[in-house]
Amino acid sequence: MILEVAILDVKKGEEKNFESAFSRAQIIISSMEGYISHQLKNCIEKPNRYILLVNWETIENHTIGFRESKQYQEWQKLLHHFYDPFPEVHHYTDISSR
Amino acid sequence: MILEVAILDVKKGEEKNFESAFSRAQIIISSMEGYISHQLKNCIEKPNRYILLVNWETIENHTIGFRESKQYQEWQKLLHHFYDPFPEVHHYTDISSR
Repeated sequence: MILEVAILDVKKGEEKNFESAFSRAQIIISSMEGYISHQLKNCIEKPNRYILLVNWETIENHTIGFRESKQYQEWQKLLHHFYDPFPEVHHYTDISSR
Repeated sequence: MILEVAILDVKKGEEKNFESAFSRAQIIISSMEGYISHQLKNCIEKPNRYILLVNWETIENHTIGFRESKQYQEWQKLLHHFYDPFPEVHHYTDISSR
């Protein structure tokens, strides 16, 4: 199992619109092959910051299966315009399973 | 419930020593009041990067209860010398529970 981690800085004033768009977008990611679960959480110290944590079966389920899908076009359209700067995304694995 | 998130960049070559020190340090954090659960994971793209995720009942359980405790002195001694740069730590809350 792989954890995708994205720290999302949303343009100030757009937080509510982002949350509303995300509530639609999460239906897309949840339907992808290899998707296990996700959480979106809001930063206490920086109210326009969010963290998206997604568990995938394999890294390729995210980097190929999702990012090269038609559904990703829709995800992008819903969410990417909210980000400033555009987020770096990293993948993490359990220490014990390396 | 509050999620503490720390992205930990460990000095290159010190990864195994850090993991071994962390396996001792996790006993300390797990015994603190308000601690719920934690995960330490290793970054695939940057092998000397880790993410520490800790669930606490309240933010004060971490920022006051843990950081002002005697046990934190021990935690620091075990772990802080591995980090470069010294990590920023943020706290996140569920969107729906704000």
